[in-house]
Amino acid sequence: MTADTEMVGAPAPVVGIVMGSDSDWPVMREAARALEEFDIPYEADVVSAHRMPGEMIAYGQGAAARGLRVLVAGAGGAAHLPGMLASVTPLPVVGVPVPLKYLDGMDSLLSIVQMPAGVPVATVSIGGARNAGLLAARIVGTGSDELAGDVREQMVAFQAELRDQAHAKGVKLRDEVARGLD
Amino acid sequence: MTADTEMVGAPAPVVGIVMGSDSDWPVMREAARALEEFDIPYEADVVSAHRMPGEMIAYGQGAAARGLRVLVAGAGGAAHLPGMLASVTPLPVVGVPVPLKYLDGMDSLLSIVQMPAGVPVATVSIGGARNAGLLAARIVGTGSDELAGDVREQMVAFQAELRDQAHAKGVKLRDEVARGLD
Amino acid sequence: MTADTEMVGAPAPVVGIVMGSDSDWPVMREAARALEEFDIPYEADVVSAHRMPGEMIAYGQGAAARGLRVLVAGAGGAAHLPGMLASVTPLPVVGVPVPLKYLDGMDSLLSIVQMPAGVPVATVSIGGARNAGLLAARIVGTGSDELAGDVREQMVAFQAELRDQAHAKGVKLRDEVARGLD
Amino acid sequence: MTADTEMVGAPAPVVGIVMGSDSDWPVMREAARALEEFDIPYEADVVSAHRMPGEMIAYGQGAAARGLRVLVAGAGGAAHLPGMLASVTPLPVVGVPVPLKYLDGMDSLLSIVQMPAGVPVATVSIGGARNAGLLAARIVGTGSDELAGDVREQMVAFQAELRDQAHAKGVKLRDEVARGLD
Amino acid sequence: MTADTEMVGAPAPVVGIVMGSDSDWPVMREAARALEEFDIPYEADVVSAHRMPGEMIAYGQGAAARGLRVLVAGAGGAAHLPGMLASVTPLPVVGVPVPLKYLDGMDSLLSIVQMPAGVPVATVSIGGARNAGLLAARIVGTGSDELAGDVREQMVAFQAELRDQAHAKGVKLRDEVARGLD
Amino acid sequence: MTADTEMVGAPAPVVGIVMGSDSDWPVMREAARALEEFDIPYEADVVSAHRMPGEMIAYGQGAAARGLRVLVAGAGGAAHLPGMLASVTPLPVVGVPVPLKYLDGMDSLLSIVQMPAGVPVATVSIGGARNAGLLAARIVGTGSDELAGDVREQMVAFQAELRDQAHAKGVKLRDEVARGLD
Amino acid sequence: MTADTEMVGAPAPVVGIVMGSDSDWPVMREAARALEEFDIPYEADVVSAHRMPGEMIAYGQGAAARGLRVLVAGAGGAAHLPGMLASVTPLPVVGVPVPLKYLDGMDSLLSIVQMPAGVPVATVSIGGARNAGLLAARIVGTGSDELAGDVREQMVAFQAELRDQAHAKGVKLRDEVARGLD
Amino acid sequence: MTADTEMVGAPAPVVGIVMGSDSDWPVMREAARALEEFDIPYEADVVSAHRMPGEMIAYGQGAAARGLRVLVAGAGGAAHLPGMLASVTPLPVVGVPVPLKYLDGMDSLLSIVQMPAGVPVATVSIGGARNAGLLAARIVGTGSDELAGDVREQMVAFQAELRDQAHAKGVKLRDEVARGLD
Repeated sequence: MTADTEMVGAPAPVVGIVMGSDSDWPVMREAARALEEFDIPYEADVVSAHRMPGEMIAYGQGAAARGLRVLVAGAGGAAHLPGMLASVTPLPVVGVPVPLKYLDGMDSLLSIVQMPAGVPVATVSIGGARNAGLLAARIVGTGSDELAGDVREQMVAFQAELRDQAHAKGVKLRDEVARGLD
Repeated sequence: MTADTEMVGAPAPVVGIVMGSDSDWPVMREAARALEEFDIPYEADVVSAHRMPGEMIAYGQGAAARGLRVLVAGAGGAAHLPGMLASVTPLPVVGVPVPLKYLDGMDSLLSIVQMPAGVPVATVSIGGARNAGLLAARIVGTGSDELAGDVREQMVAFQAELRDQAHAKGVKLRDEVARGLD
Repeated sequence: MTADTEMVGAPAPVVGIVMGSDSDWPVMREAARALEEFDIPYEADVVSAHRMPGEMIAYGQGAAARGLRVLVAGAGGAAHLPGMLASVTPLPVVGVPVPLKYLDGMDSLLSIVQMPAGVPVATVSIGGARNAGLLAARIVGTGSDELAGDVREQMVAFQAELRDQAHAKGVKLRDEVARGLD
Repeated sequence: MTADTEMVGAPAPVVGIVMGSDSDWPVMREAARALEEFDIPYEADVVSAHRMPGEMIAYGQGAAARGLRVLVAGAGGAAHLPGMLASVTPLPVVGVPVPLKYLDGMDSLLSIVQMPAGVPVATVSIGGARNAGLLAARIVGTGSDELAGDVREQMVAFQAELRDQAHAKGVKLRDEVARGLD
Repeated sequence: MTADTEMVGAPAPVVGIVMGSDSDWPVMREAARALEEFDIPYEADVVSAHRMPGEMIAYGQGAAARGLRVLVAGAGGAAHLPGMLASVTPLPVVGVPVPLKYLDGMDSLLSIVQMPAGVPVATVSIGGARNAGLLAARIVGTGSDELAGDVREQMVAFQAELRDQAHAKGVKLRDEVARGLD
Repeated sequence: MTADTEMVGAPAPVVGIVMGSDSDWPVMREAARALEEFDIPYEADVVSAHRMPGEMIAYGQGAAARGLRVLVAGAGGAAHLPGMLASVTPLPVVGVPVPLKYLDGMDSLLSIVQMPAGVPVATVSIGGARNAGLLAARIVGTGSDELAGDVREQMVAFQAELRDQAHAKGVKLRDEVARGLD
Repeated sequence: MTADTEMVGAPAPVVGIVMGSDSDWPVMREAARALEEFDIPYEADVVSAHRMPGEMIAYGQGAAARGLRVLVAGAGGAAHLPGMLASVTPLPVVGVPVPLKYLDGMDSLLSIVQMPAGVPVATVSIGGARNAGLLAARIVGTGSDELAGDVREQMVAFQAELRDQAHAKGVKLRDEVARGLD
Repeated sequence: MTADTEMVGAPAPVVGIVMGSDSDWPVMREAARALEEFDIPYEADVVSAHRMPGEMIAYGQGAAARGLRVLVAGAGGAAHLPGMLASVTPLPVVGVPVPLKYLDGMDSLLSIVQMPAGVPVATVSIGGARNAGLLAARIVGTGSDELAGDVREQMVAFQAELRDQAHAKGVKLRDEVARGLD
């Protein structure tokens, strides 16, 4: 898998976004979008802990050598993918609890976050793939190469923009209230 | 591992009891005890999904060929062992949610029982290792060899004994009540 | 009931799929479908613990003698069917927590899985009838007759197919990502 | 069982207190104590849904004919006893969720209270055996015989006593506060 | 309220069905329907613990004297109505946890069932108003007057009918399965 | 922000309603409506703990000096706004748990109510913005100025109206029942 | 009760601390302690919603006229006291969920916080009586009399002291770390 | 604070471990221990979101400029510290849910992990401070300086050691079982 997951002609990915099934993609795409906003090269793939355990382990074991710096893994229910990857790579693994039809993702959350001592997973909120991408960006930004510097700079700008958007919402709300409640 | 997990001179094990750490043994021992009551040969081992993922997968992949008919796996917290084994063996896997310090085993239960379609785990109650052993015995009893026949017979006797014990408790309680509440 | 639950002209069923009401059938049908994929003869019936307790107990008590090897029982809410059957048969009983209108099946799950020592139920995920069928197939596959051998062989092929499907999904996802996010 | 559960020489019991094991007696004894306070004759027995299902059903089926008016059933975990009894008797069944080692009785509560339409169980609080006894007393008090009249009268006095005790506690607390906090 | 809640020309009600708001009526109507099936005269009213506490207490205090034998009270969220009524009447009070927009009725259930020692509420399932009506019928049936005798007889017939309906569903399901899964 | 959040020409606001995003406004508007019913001047604004932490703290620190007497803060998920405001103002802060897409607001509730000793938040029900406004009104009504007196008087009238509305619903329900169930 | 709950010779209480039983006092005493720190006169009493409903309602109805400005009510399990008081007084009511033997106070919390629209309770954390006292102090501090002014001033000092204590803990911790981990 | 939190003479810290109170130190110390095993310089401090919000924000805002690469923040209950720090720093923040007296840390977990889009917190298990330290180490190891290289190398060795320890436990367990169950 190592070969064809890299996008030819593109810069080598530094973040790997993986999920147990393509049905998780509508949730996990937000992680990819966040990374694109920060110009961080990434790859995305289906790597199922339960349906292709051998390849899953190979993916994790080879991730660091292929130049990946962070893995982002989404899974639902008895969500084993993030934790299993964390057990075979020294890279930080960000886990996204994907909510399924029942239990609102509480099973996914506990299956990802409650890892035993020795094997951490950086868990984000239920369905929180955008935050997973942003967390990966923050991690990439801790480095000392050019990419890291760019990301750090952009992150500061991004946070300022969050603030400005919230300000704008406040202006709009105050206006609306000034015109009276309907 | 295949070699030294078999007890030399003993009949080949048909049930494999595995757990993520020897700290699970005080809970999981009850599965072994139940199997001994039914004279079902078993092996017990530490097979950690998170600390020795390669060996864990090898254990699961080799289990059927070594003559095992059922796996019993106990794990706590983000309990991935039963599900990961189920993904690499065609054998039935019985999962025991081991309760840890917090959450009373609810995390363990959900991490084991909420498996995706395609990869079932036969989950028993929180801390229910005795029932895991009895379930393994029932499964062994579905076969058509001599061992299966013996187990079936014993299971009927076992259930009669459960009934007799409950009867005896009733007699004792009625006596106690007849003497008056303290 | 013993007579007319067998499908005349068909091979004698080895798995009995039962549920408290025909309203559970849309969920439980997936267990039947899984067994058909593995060519395992089964029967399906409404056997209510609360509405026909006498027949329910008769069903469980007669199951082994009629040649059934595994029972699959689905129930919702205060789900007593799987556990009550397990108390009157030496066969392994697979329990399916059927989600009802409220609580997302958490009540069904706990009512099925938290059985007392002595009477195990092999519990699968909430609404996980397909996995119940697959677990029954794995159990049938532990035997030493021809059916068991066939099922074991098919199970290995089934697991390879799960892997291939996941691979194909990965190819599709990588293609989609390569074309750019919408 | 019908014969020896009646206390010879005592008035025929009108309430049957049953539980799955004598280990539930320390909790369930409070139901008996409450009935004794109201001079309501009762019997107490071990009747296990899972260990003696046949006798359990016989107990429920014979209860009304033996003169019992209310059943009080305590059970823990996958607590099936109250609901199964309710399915074989037209009498009101009061269910007591007995807390076990894990989950604080939440599994017991849901297994008892979430009964399907048609088969009600009058559920009281987790570990609330005293209230189960008092509820049985209230039910006995709805009748038109002498016992019912006595119970109604005592219940009014009992409620007045609850009020007086609370008053006395208030006096004591105000005194304590007047002397200053330690 | 005592005067106009009785239906003129009708037999005096023996069950009072009350709820905090008429928005609970679509749920609580099922309790009324169950009582009508058993020809048990009832009254239904809005009695809010939080919006008309004085009248609520008066309703409870006067209930027994007006000839009511059982109260059925439905409430949602911080559901105080059943418990407050139970504190001012010696009659048995059946509580129905009404599910609101959030939490699936778990808040209603705990607010009703977890009553302190001394003041029991007979709690049924979330949204289980039909069972509340049936439980009230069982309680009425414990008496020794003509109505009680009629109800007891009907309850036995009702339970037989539940069994017959379940049987019929089984026939239908076996037919459907015999024709093959779609 | 201090300047433009005040509505020019209007009486100085005594309650500040704030929320993390304008997407909370459909919920929080009910707090504003309740205050308008009591003629209590208020302001409403977007003040995000996570997107504009500096302004959030400034808002809280300046609130008392600007004449506000109560803050009402709504937030969802990891809802930090009410607690953070409470840490920088001596005013009472009312917290409204806003339910998000998953978990029905249970995360919001716990994030708001479980404050450490020293920094209280007056938490209302999930989505309970109307009650937050009414609670703010009750608090304003504890004062000794003219506004407080007016509010106290109106609150008594408001409670009488709640009672009258409940009465009217009872009349309507009794009528409906008298005409027979459909 | 109105007469003897006032402490003779002391300033008239402005906060009423009430609880369902004196067994809640070890928790609720912290509310009293907090008020004493702010020199706010208070009274404390046992007022049980379930054991003395009539007096409970009288207490709530008379509270404002007796000069109380805030009620603090603690209760556990099906905790009805805070909500019932809130329904009969226009004063703000602070509710303290008292944890009982099971469920860690989650039942108490939901029974208190999930009040219907119209009748708010200002809920604090499970066992959070100290915060209830501090919230009452903040509410008293919103007034315009001398006591209110004193409380406001002290609250600012109190918050500064919290900060200083936290600072001191930081110094101590940094020292400890500088000496090396044990 | 910036000056005295650095340990004089020691290499500049790259990880900041902070907590709301020194009572969290017994839990959080495990994060420090993990970092020491990897020779990663760190600082530890009390930084309370609720008791010293100004300094908390200053700490977060200055962290990157002082050379810190990762923040590890532990908090319990309504745990706002990790999320508030994440809102004022571009660094990755690792959150440790500290369990308090009630709710087993479930409130802490949800308050930390359920962050809104835009502001991620890398959450680890309840009480999982050791994993927080290891996650910080993995993040430091993603860089390209000498420290990062050392950490990466050590992490691989650390994972091998985890495996070896698990192996050793397996040997010990197999021995114990071979000697027979007690």
